[in-house]
Amino acid sequence: MSLEIERKFLVKNNDFKQEAYQQKRMQQGYLNSNKKRTVRIRTTDEKAFITIKGKSNKSGTTRFEWEKEISLEEAEKLLLLCESSIIDKTRFYIKKGKHIFEVDEFYGDNNGLIIAEVELSSENETFEKPNWIGKEVTGNQQYYNSYLSKKPYKNW
Amino acid sequence: MSLEIERKFLVKNNDFKQEAYQQKRMQQGYLNSNKKRTVRIRTTDEKAFITIKGKSNKSGTTRFEWEKEISLEEAEKLLLLCESSIIDKTRFYIKKGKHIFEVDEFYGDNNGLIIAEVELSSENETFEKPNWIGKEVTGNQQYYNSYLSKKPYKNW
Repeated sequence: MSLEIERKFLVKNNDFKQEAYQQKRMQQGYLNSNKKRTVRIRTTDEKAFITIKGKSNKSGTTRFEWEKEISLEEAEKLLLLCESSIIDKTRFYIKKGKHIFEVDEFYGDNNGLIIAEVELSSENETFEKPNWIGKEVTGNQQYYNSYLSKKPYKNW
Repeated sequence: MSLEIERKFLVKNNDFKQEAYQQKRMQQGYLNSNKKRTVRIRTTDEKAFITIKGKSNKSGTTRFEWEKEISLEEAEKLLLLCESSIIDKTRFYIKKGKHIFEVDEFYGDNNGLIIAEVELSSENETFEKPNWIGKEVTGNQQYYNSYLSKKPYKNW
């Protein structure tokens, strides 16, 4: 249980892929995608998690987050209960200075969308910006995965 | 993870209280009360649980259910995220033949409402009916706890 402080950016090109030290395919769905509280089921790397997030603060940077590991078998049953469509993406991990950027390349109905996130220890913490980073979209709900599961990128 | 098969009844009087072999105070809230999928946080007896239920079948008897224990501290944080009001009730456990009736006496905005449930191993299983059992309300969504958290009994 923690507060998640992060900033979010669009990604300009595929250069990040060469810098990634790890990548994971992920599928995730939402039992609730209401912006005041999301309940997410995610499977990745033979593991699965249930994650609950609260509403963001005003700047969109900080959110309450609670996560628990569950079995893959449980996750598969729970994914069947989810609202609307399942998000399918690969997450790339890139180290820059003392931070790790997580870059999500989306498939299916969100094909073409690439989003980078960096987790910070405080709202005003500075960080090194990779040159493939584009426009900041922190707090923009259209780029929440919960939103993308209902209004996918292909329909924007 | 299981299928929950149960029937639900209104309760005519307080006679059930003398027959109870156990009782527990419970508080519970909903992170999602959509009837297709509910996500419930419940605290009782110094324990806490997250429970996800799917949609009922046509008769209203059978529902998918998944439950995991969480810490009380986690539950208290998650209850703050819940939609609308928190349900407060005492659950009484009464043995009748080979079945256990769970009778919920509600407080607060649902004061005056008493509901009995009996869990069955199949939809057509017979069971001994206590004489304090009233009208059957199986499958009636108005009596779902998730519904009561949004539309409490006092406003009916």
